[in-house]
Amino acid sequence: MLALTVPTASREQLVDITAEVNRALASLGAGDGLCHLWCPHTTAALAVNEGADPDVASDVLSALRRIVPPGGYRHAEGNSPAHVKSVLAGPFLLLPVRAGRLALGTWQSVFLCEFDGPRNRRVEIRFIPLEGA
Amino acid sequence: MLALTVPTASREQLVDITAEVNRALASLGAGDGLCHLWCPHTTAALAVNEGADPDVASDVLSALRRIVPPGGYRHAEGNSPAHVKSVLAGPFLLLPVRAGRLALGTWQSVFLCEFDGPRNRRVEIRFIPLEGA
Amino acid sequence: MLALTVPTASREQLVDITAEVNRALASLGAGDGLCHLWCPHTTAALAVNEGADPDVASDVLSALRRIVPPGGYRHAEGNSPAHVKSVLAGPFLLLPVRAGRLALGTWQSVFLCEFDGPRNRRVEIRFIPLEGA
Repeated sequence: MLALTVPTASREQLVDITAEVNRALASLGAGDGLCHLWCPHTTAALAVNEGADPDVASDVLSALRRIVPPGGYRHAEGNSPAHVKSVLAGPFLLLPVRAGRLALGTWQSVFLCEFDGPRNRRVEIRFIPLEGA
Repeated sequence: MLALTVPTASREQLVDITAEVNRALASLGAGDGLCHLWCPHTTAALAVNEGADPDVASDVLSALRRIVPPGGYRHAEGNSPAHVKSVLAGPFLLLPVRAGRLALGTWQSVFLCEFDGPRNRRVEIRFIPLEGA
Repeated sequence: MLALTVPTASREQLVDITAEVNRALASLGAGDGLCHLWCPHTTAALAVNEGADPDVASDVLSALRRIVPPGGYRHAEGNSPAHVKSVLAGPFLLLPVRAGRLALGTWQSVFLCEFDGPRNRRVEIRFIPLEGA
């Protein structure tokens, strides 16, 4: 297992971590298999989507703000929308790996989703080797 | 594989099953690796989020009621919102395990999400061993 | 690894691929373990829910249209709702396999979720063997 530290710069942000994950897979000596990513936080999450046009990440964040608006929650810390968004996006991914690198689709990137930043976030990377994967 | 039976007490409820999953991992003789949880239902799901303050689970349920309001569906059984919420949360988790126990973040707990209870729900637990995980 | 090509017939559609996945598992010589499904697209996703009554799939699509309405996005291609829905549903599944077949719950089916069709979509299938799973 390797862990990344991902610094975020604002309250809400999608940070493309694809290159960092590929570097970690190289350090782990990965071949063919699957890559497990784990986000040990409750107001941040992980997602895969388009990385080519940064407007897509911006649209995902603005859509989530409309889906989970502020106000009307009981949790005293005031960050309940961040908890709900983290449940919707989810704290883990399981991604295909070929010859030691993420084997994503043409338009796919891996994102750390910050919903209650800025903070330093942790992402754990584990490799599951599979024959002929 | 081991299976838990999780009784739920109301129409909608998040039940913290972290301790039960750890007991099952011990019974499975788990070491380092990943724990797969599977919920074989279509109106219940699994999620990870804050377990320390029960207001967070309550806020997640109330947010989901606003996101997927009742009314306007075709499915005759009247529980379509529960099906949609189950798709949003998802029927499985893959969680890090260290020395036979879930290696979650400080604030993370594992929840069975009941959206159409009360019922007895089943959660299947499988362990994937990984060297040096 | 095996890959399915899933042709979709309309802008939005849930396509039941359970039988195709079982055929692929047979071709892969699967026994007991877990089946990883990967959707390498950013406007399509994978989900598990009820397959018996097609009204449920229809209700999931109509609920997602209400959750992620058209309009108000920056991405110039006009398909931002499809990107957001794909983030909510997610690009992968990890499903239990027993004796070479998906071991789903009574009402569960596996769906390719098309949010920006019609197109030919790809789904990659990998098998993780587990002893005594």
